[in-house]
Amino acid sequence: MSLPRRSEILQNFLAEQNLDGWIAWRPDEILMMTGHLTRWNVSVLLYPKDAQPVLFIPALEPRDHLPANAKIVEYPWGVLDCADPFSPLKEQVAAEMRAAQISPERVGMLHRSSRGTLSVLSAENSSLPADIGDQFAAMIGPRSPHAETAFLGLFIYKTPEEIATIRLANRVALIGISAFEKASVPGAREIEIASAIETAIALQTDIGEVFYAKGWAMVQSGPNSAEGGMFNRSTGRVVESGDLVVLELATCVNGYWSDLTRTLAVGPLRPELQRVYDTALRANQAALQMVAPGAIAGAVDAAAREVIRREGLASFFTHHTGHHVGFRYHDPGFSIVPGSTAVLAPGMIVAIEPGIYVPELGGGARQEENVLVTESGRDVLSQPAN
Amino acid sequence: MSLPRRSEILQNFLAEQNLDGWIAWRPDEILMMTGHLTRWNVSVLLYPKDAQPVLFIPALEPRDHLPANAKIVEYPWGVLDCADPFSPLKEQVAAEMRAAQISPERVGMLHRSSRGTLSVLSAENSSLPADIGDQFAAMIGPRSPHAETAFLGLFIYKTPEEIATIRLANRVALIGISAFEKASVPGAREIEIASAIETAIALQTDIGEVFYAKGWAMVQSGPNSAEGGMFNRSTGRVVESGDLVVLELATCVNGYWSDLTRTLAVGPLRPELQRVYDTALRANQAALQMVAPGAIAGAVDAAAREVIRREGLASFFTHHTGHHVGFRYHDPGFSIVPGSTAVLAPGMIVAIEPGIYVPELGGGARQEENVLVTESGRDVLSQPAN
Repeated sequence: MSLPRRSEILQNFLAEQNLDGWIAWRPDEILMMTGHLTRWNVSVLLYPKDAQPVLFIPALEPRDHLPANAKIVEYPWGVLDCADPFSPLKEQVAAEMRAAQISPERVGMLHRSSRGTLSVLSAENSSLPADIGDQFAAMIGPRSPHAETAFLGLFIYKTPEEIATIRLANRVALIGISAFEKASVPGAREIEIASAIETAIALQTDIGEVFYAKGWAMVQSGPNSAEGGMFNRSTGRVVESGDLVVLELATCVNGYWSDLTRTLAVGPLRPELQRVYDTALRANQAALQMVAPGAIAGAVDAAAREVIRREGLASFFTHHTGHHVGFRYHDPGFSIVPGSTAVLAPGMIVAIEPGIYVPELGGGARQEENVLVTESGRDVLSQPAN
Repeated sequence: MSLPRRSEILQNFLAEQNLDGWIAWRPDEILMMTGHLTRWNVSVLLYPKDAQPVLFIPALEPRDHLPANAKIVEYPWGVLDCADPFSPLKEQVAAEMRAAQISPERVGMLHRSSRGTLSVLSAENSSLPADIGDQFAAMIGPRSPHAETAFLGLFIYKTPEEIATIRLANRVALIGISAFEKASVPGAREIEIASAIETAIALQTDIGEVFYAKGWAMVQSGPNSAEGGMFNRSTGRVVESGDLVVLELATCVNGYWSDLTRTLAVGPLRPELQRVYDTALRANQAALQMVAPGAIAGAVDAAAREVIRREGLASFFTHHTGHHVGFRYHDPGFSIVPGSTAVLAPGMIVAIEPGIYVPELGGGARQEENVLVTESGRDVLSQPAN
């Protein structure tokens, strides 16, 4: 594939928006723009037109795995006798804008953003000041909804380097899937299975190209699997023979994300649950077959939905068919939903996840794959061959 | 102790601020105000003066463990054919304000907030609209920095019910500490030890009063422990005999938090590392001894710092001595730092965590306890007796 590099995409974006630069501080924005995984979640990026990006890191930031393509500037966050690290930070940002001959009025940013990814320390959000967005906004040009929308649009195209790491994240996720298959036996508790999966993923840390690996596994068995549309927590329920067991698995490797779902049958299934299971799998395959450059998102959704409708199960498929994935667990960008006229294009990576949840039958099933749209068709990143 | 109930604290707050109500949507705010752990992180709370709180939950929210003390109103988030669930939500909030005879101009909220806790699905932030704060702000009265500061001040006093659950969180955390002691042997990888700790905590799910238990363990061994002030990730490093091993452990139980640190010596320590270890422990004890109603935060800090200074290690204690804890991994409120004139009072729970990190010696140590200020002194929640 002849996909553009990220720096080209960003320079084109700045040129098209008539901007001299962009400021970012959310981890998923910094990841998308530089490939860098922030650790403390208080780093700030100045991305200038036609000049080297500048990454402002706190004094406490670990120095391994800093981006090679950026100038690094340290600011005194985490230093005991510094009561206000953010005033120096803002002065440094202003100084770097001057040094790069950037006119502050021609700098943009994403003023509001929900659903960003988290720091490595995922127990907590950023400790940047509550009004950091307002503070940066006061330093730069007026808000441009058009530029913000265009910026969010940059998340949906992945470059070859990014695809390689998202492929790696899926490979690590599949190690979690193997642990799922091994641990899902009668007598095991859901939370026990989830812990085995998360452990298998974490243990990939510092092996090969992986320097950070973390999984979030949600396991729902028997009647709980019928509530799969709620992505409920893993409970203490004990798995029984005859259960469907649904695993929803988020995996982050070096900052990049995989989002997979698998369903297992533990022991022989009742025929009606077998039908739910088979239909969910066929719906996934039908949608996957539709993924190609030029495909309409609504048609991909319809392919999955039609398989389920034919089995009389349409009312039990209660959510979207898919979404973009890679820089986040759920990337910004269009959803694969009924009626969508959005068009798939090379470089997009989408999660395809039709599901069927039937409380009356005490079971549900969902299969979720991450698939890259290529020049000629598709490449399913979440199957063992890859 | 005769601590007030949360509802009394909140009603007094509204009366003092001359407000008819308060709107909250961040999980830690909802937890503090109702004791409720949101699952999808898109719930919204209307807390009226002299009337029952109203919790707006998404259609997909699991129905177990909803708060008994609130009216529950469902809004259509997560419903496939609802393109905009937030317009109905805002209409419902407005309707409930009318029903409770609340004047919207007399309703407050926290306009900006950083560092909130996360949803149960901790891989991702809330998917409320990016500008949800602005949307609610447009519905209610003008911003009151005074009321916002007073609201944040409510986090530092815990009620008897809250103390009981934070105590439970510490008990569960200690199960993780036991796993740490067992797993920290020569030949074990840091990430392997961290996984054993997180698993031990997760397995407490649905045992006794615990319905949700999750741990975040960071294990740093040998030279990595000397970088403890950075709270770095757990790496693939293999623990060796003679290492100091530092565990930083966040634990969330039913929404409430414990924040502990332990340091272990694996095998015999070199005398200079033994001194680092002993001094960190003594510094913690010295600070703990100072915790009592009326104690000055700066004096608590000084007690820890003085122990370390006497050993000539002052420059290696690079961070604060402590902070509030319980509704978050790090609660809002004053820090226990040099020169602070803040005063400890009954009902506060603080984490006390002096540390010493000496790269030249290839080791560091930190001991962290969570301690309740009582009417007569202190109650260390993070020791096995409790």
